[in-house]
Amino acid sequence: MAANTFGEIFRITTFGESHGIALGGVIDGCPAGLEIDFDFIQQELDRRKPGQSKIVTQRKEPDTVEFLSGIFEGKTTGVPIGFIIKNDNQRSKDYDHIKNSFRPSHADFTYDTKYGNRDYRGGGRSSARETVARVVGGAVAKLLLKKLGVSVQAYVSQVGSLKLKKNYTQLDLSKTESNIVRCPDKKMAEEMITLIDSVRKKGDTIGGLVTGVAKGVPVGWGEPVFDKLHADLGKAMLSINAVKGFEYGSGFEGVALKGSEHNDAFYAEKGKIKTKTNHSGGIQGGISNGEDIYFSVAFKPVATIMMDQDSVDKKGKKTVVTGKGRHDPCVLPRAVPIVEAMTALVLVDHYLRARTNRI
Amino acid sequence: MAANTFGEIFRITTFGESHGIALGGVIDGCPAGLEIDFDFIQQELDRRKPGQSKIVTQRKEPDTVEFLSGIFEGKTTGVPIGFIIKNDNQRSKDYDHIKNSFRPSHADFTYDTKYGNRDYRGGGRSSARETVARVVGGAVAKLLLKKLGVSVQAYVSQVGSLKLKKNYTQLDLSKTESNIVRCPDKKMAEEMITLIDSVRKKGDTIGGLVTGVAKGVPVGWGEPVFDKLHADLGKAMLSINAVKGFEYGSGFEGVALKGSEHNDAFYAEKGKIKTKTNHSGGIQGGISNGEDIYFSVAFKPVATIMMDQDSVDKKGKKTVVTGKGRHDPCVLPRAVPIVEAMTALVLVDHYLRARTNRI
Amino acid sequence: MAANTFGEIFRITTFGESHGIALGGVIDGCPAGLEIDFDFIQQELDRRKPGQSKIVTQRKEPDTVEFLSGIFEGKTTGVPIGFIIKNDNQRSKDYDHIKNSFRPSHADFTYDTKYGNRDYRGGGRSSARETVARVVGGAVAKLLLKKLGVSVQAYVSQVGSLKLKKNYTQLDLSKTESNIVRCPDKKMAEEMITLIDSVRKKGDTIGGLVTGVAKGVPVGWGEPVFDKLHADLGKAMLSINAVKGFEYGSGFEGVALKGSEHNDAFYAEKGKIKTKTNHSGGIQGGISNGEDIYFSVAFKPVATIMMDQDSVDKKGKKTVVTGKGRHDPCVLPRAVPIVEAMTALVLVDHYLRARTNRI
Amino acid sequence: MAANTFGEIFRITTFGESHGIALGGVIDGCPAGLEIDFDFIQQELDRRKPGQSKIVTQRKEPDTVEFLSGIFEGKTTGVPIGFIIKNDNQRSKDYDHIKNSFRPSHADFTYDTKYGNRDYRGGGRSSARETVARVVGGAVAKLLLKKLGVSVQAYVSQVGSLKLKKNYTQLDLSKTESNIVRCPDKKMAEEMITLIDSVRKKGDTIGGLVTGVAKGVPVGWGEPVFDKLHADLGKAMLSINAVKGFEYGSGFEGVALKGSEHNDAFYAEKGKIKTKTNHSGGIQGGISNGEDIYFSVAFKPVATIMMDQDSVDKKGKKTVVTGKGRHDPCVLPRAVPIVEAMTALVLVDHYLRARTNRI
Repeated sequence: MAANTFGEIFRITTFGESHGIALGGVIDGCPAGLEIDFDFIQQELDRRKPGQSKIVTQRKEPDTVEFLSGIFEGKTTGVPIGFIIKNDNQRSKDYDHIKNSFRPSHADFTYDTKYGNRDYRGGGRSSARETVARVVGGAVAKLLLKKLGVSVQAYVSQVGSLKLKKNYTQLDLSKTESNIVRCPDKKMAEEMITLIDSVRKKGDTIGGLVTGVAKGVPVGWGEPVFDKLHADLGKAMLSINAVKGFEYGSGFEGVALKGSEHNDAFYAEKGKIKTKTNHSGGIQGGISNGEDIYFSVAFKPVATIMMDQDSVDKKGKKTVVTGKGRHDPCVLPRAVPIVEAMTALVLVDHYLRARTNRI
Repeated sequence: MAANTFGEIFRITTFGESHGIALGGVIDGCPAGLEIDFDFIQQELDRRKPGQSKIVTQRKEPDTVEFLSGIFEGKTTGVPIGFIIKNDNQRSKDYDHIKNSFRPSHADFTYDTKYGNRDYRGGGRSSARETVARVVGGAVAKLLLKKLGVSVQAYVSQVGSLKLKKNYTQLDLSKTESNIVRCPDKKMAEEMITLIDSVRKKGDTIGGLVTGVAKGVPVGWGEPVFDKLHADLGKAMLSINAVKGFEYGSGFEGVALKGSEHNDAFYAEKGKIKTKTNHSGGIQGGISNGEDIYFSVAFKPVATIMMDQDSVDKKGKKTVVTGKGRHDPCVLPRAVPIVEAMTALVLVDHYLRARTNRI
Repeated sequence: MAANTFGEIFRITTFGESHGIALGGVIDGCPAGLEIDFDFIQQELDRRKPGQSKIVTQRKEPDTVEFLSGIFEGKTTGVPIGFIIKNDNQRSKDYDHIKNSFRPSHADFTYDTKYGNRDYRGGGRSSARETVARVVGGAVAKLLLKKLGVSVQAYVSQVGSLKLKKNYTQLDLSKTESNIVRCPDKKMAEEMITLIDSVRKKGDTIGGLVTGVAKGVPVGWGEPVFDKLHADLGKAMLSINAVKGFEYGSGFEGVALKGSEHNDAFYAEKGKIKTKTNHSGGIQGGISNGEDIYFSVAFKPVATIMMDQDSVDKKGKKTVVTGKGRHDPCVLPRAVPIVEAMTALVLVDHYLRARTNRI
Repeated sequence: MAANTFGEIFRITTFGESHGIALGGVIDGCPAGLEIDFDFIQQELDRRKPGQSKIVTQRKEPDTVEFLSGIFEGKTTGVPIGFIIKNDNQRSKDYDHIKNSFRPSHADFTYDTKYGNRDYRGGGRSSARETVARVVGGAVAKLLLKKLGVSVQAYVSQVGSLKLKKNYTQLDLSKTESNIVRCPDKKMAEEMITLIDSVRKKGDTIGGLVTGVAKGVPVGWGEPVFDKLHADLGKAMLSINAVKGFEYGSGFEGVALKGSEHNDAFYAEKGKIKTKTNHSGGIQGGISNGEDIYFSVAFKPVATIMMDQDSVDKKGKKTVVTGKGRHDPCVLPRAVPIVEAMTALVLVDHYLRARTNRI
């Protein structure tokens, strides 16, 4: 069933495989009249691209986006924005050994059983390379959010067992891009880099957390029942490769609190209703309440390791699979722009949905 | 925007407010020929209904479902199944005090600002009473899953700081319904009941975790990119009132592992490909791999407490809000059937979607 | 697959069979703050109901709508509007003879083959009785359109070979409800009534045309490619039972014209851009251009006739089927409010969609 | 709002403007394992492409499709099929004169008012060039239908007042491609060509009808209420540029018949239930009944004529617009493959939807 589209009004459809001719997408429902800052979009792609530092995959992809439609004289026209990113640096022969074998904790086995047929090169459609199209869509969404005074930022808050003690209000998020691991705390960033590097040298991988923050979201975005704002954010994050969990506001830790400790008391300041605490994470009853929205996303360790692993082939025969090629020892640094992109896509969609709330 | 529908092929649309005439729903896309066990459906509703024990709200609602269409001579006919559950035991005057005030950490403020107009009685549409319709839909979904050999079970795994050390494989899940808190471990159940009771006596509330398990799901359910099986499960869970987080498989704890520790090695047994461990939680690349699917859902403490709380009225004037009426000190016991219902809805939908995978 | 929902933002889901307990629906996406005129809605239902004159079925149904949710203190609240219409006057035994036989040109055979199971009483879900829920939805849509200055009117323009020579601009549409056939031309109305009556006496039936007109639609409703305004109107009309064709503007006759004859020249009047002619039917490139929207809908003769007809039973054995019960000799008079309802549903949906066109 | 996607399970999203870099699309939901005959797809495009004869536009476009994803080793893999068709032969300066003026009966005025911004070159997104992507999608759909024994054919049945007296059962449809107007009756084809040529020489244009026929559709495709098979076919046809009407089976003429004349009597032949006549057009109650599906589509004369026409500019000032560039005097010959493509898309979608009817 058709399943490669995200969003209701502002909608992105993506296509493409890791080692195909090109990846791409169609952004449909973007309002007309939005100025497109092409440099900004490319910068977002550059934050995601491989080869940007020693702690990510050394694969070299220029990841240049080409827009094919929907933009005229620098502005959106209200019709679909088609775009492609050509694949340049595939080494498909690195994948010959998995043509008939299944890599542990990858999607090889499930794709093969579901479809009876798969493009095994580079993981095909199951590759995280698919997210390149999401970053383009998210960058366009961010341009629209900027006009509304909404900012979206994410950062690495945990790698392995190295976890930031401070929450986002205690950090200077403008420092996030100042180091290659994208953790705004300099000291912690250095420890994380050292950890990732040591794991990489062993051919192993490690997981972690990304924290996302949206500021400036007005009251009223989100739909009350199934399409709660945090439910759509959760789905968006869980749809990113390697994600195992999502929490917002007080999250999993909040469950141990009493109601009297957890409730966010209201007060008014200069005619604006606010809350004293923000365990709600900026969302109440599925609808934004004007406070900061914040959440965490759990990423498992990358499944491709440079070690021998027991597995089976298509016929169920025992085999050994060894990682080849150029892979990320830790997906976290490159996940930051992807988390931001998905956040922006959800927010813009709910902004447009909220336009139809009232007569 | 239309937002009260869940699912793509097997789809439920719900309606109704806490103190309106009736709640109800429409199940569309249920295949023809399914025998309906009306007693089973009512039992599922009884598991969710208020007043069933001393640790839940003492409100008395019979919660009797009336089916209006879509079933003929005991079987579904393939056309929509409409149903209603009448409201019987409302005490709307318990809510007069919040007509113009906002209860902390409730949806009063956000609804009011979004829509300019709200049915404040009993929380209106934002009440968890809406989930009664989900339980009906989920019960129909369970009937279909049973025919496929798929079971769905949930239980309370944490209340406040009382957390089960054992995972689901170490518990006898058939014991879940043997106590009023729905924890399969007898000793822990007793502690949880004592905790909830003590919290209740203080007029306070407490949160916790529900763990869900689906067994017997074959390989191949779930769509690879945006509609990953766990992404749809996550959205389903996050759409339940009071939910703050979702994780599946190794979840948040798994991020501290190395890839070499986390990967699930494949092996074959009697021609069937299985995994030695199950950190993947039964889902790889968004598609079920035939292993058990398991996940946890974090519920915050109920926002309605029997204590004075600072708040504001519609005009931003300072006020004090005090809980009135009959409320749950802990939502967990009654959340178990709701988690199961949403799980069943997601699974049945993906079962039907998977029917169109191949030529 | 789920298929009982119409619309994207303003969405109606219907359920119910001809001889079930009740029919009903859920209107989702209606903006908050709309005053509901319950009398108006009931009047719309009365225009559709059986037994209203000698030329329609003599079945007696009060067709009283009960609203269950979504309206508070007389206004919509932005949440779903659930409603039911109870079935009162079924004579299910009139249908025992078709339990195992297929009525010609009915949906008995196709339902039975598709689903393997059908509620044969009164045609079950395939009965035009389903449209009662559309009329409720359409009435709510009309209330919203009224506030926008948009009117929707339909009338019978042909019965059998009796066809109005005048087009809608030459008729006084306020006369439509002044006679039982709903044709605004008095003389033609009388001829049509005589024709229907004579056909009825023979146990036969007859088809005809309904013409629909929407005035006051501003420029800009409709989406340019697949969801062209006239494409959605066409689908809406073709989804009504017994409809065989749809045309708008110059329609089928316009194909014989030259471009130089057919094109609608633009001119400006008081700063407003208008067209001299309106072959476009108020829609250009799928988008409303501010002129009147008009279209025609072809209804076949009702399939149930009071005559013996050759047919087969479930096993393919030859049989004879004879119409029993109380049926319409001509569906046209009762189709008028249904055409209006579907028109209003399409227009309101596109009004809301158009709210998201521009930044 | 997102509006450039067609279909529910087998879904096509299109993008691109007449004079942009490329047009293209994404086919999502195509089952895995379908062999792709690239030559066939290109042939379908060739049937639609400009410059193929003297009676169509002399614009030269190679219209070569490039597939970017979703096909591996010659077969579909179940993931989205992205494709592009580059624009090669634009003469954008032919359109400078309409930058600020509105061509009569074109979408210039409505786009401009709706979006405030438009790519005016070649009509931008409102150009029928958009249908090139539909033909690619339709060609893939046809490949799947072929495997199911379903054929889809269309032909020109009327140009101006020249109308075929014979219906499709009396014609040899294999002759359709034997002449440049795509009318299977040789004599009528010649008259049509003469007529189009004479109209063309005057700088004028002419409309007509395309008739579509689908054979081999089994019983059970189509959903009973809103998504009736003919309602979706109707919407599909009405979404094609220049279409003003749709009818199926007995259509508009059938309304003058009596029920006793119109009903299609059932009989059985070799265990198969069939109808003696086929006024139903192969669809009863919105569901295919196994007989041939046939319908007609009305196309207005092309709006671009090589004559002076009164119009206004953006400010409402009177102006004269004259057609420039290379245009079709009659859209009918090139519409035939487009009608077939949309028919195939609807049928394949309903084939997949019907897979979920029953347990």
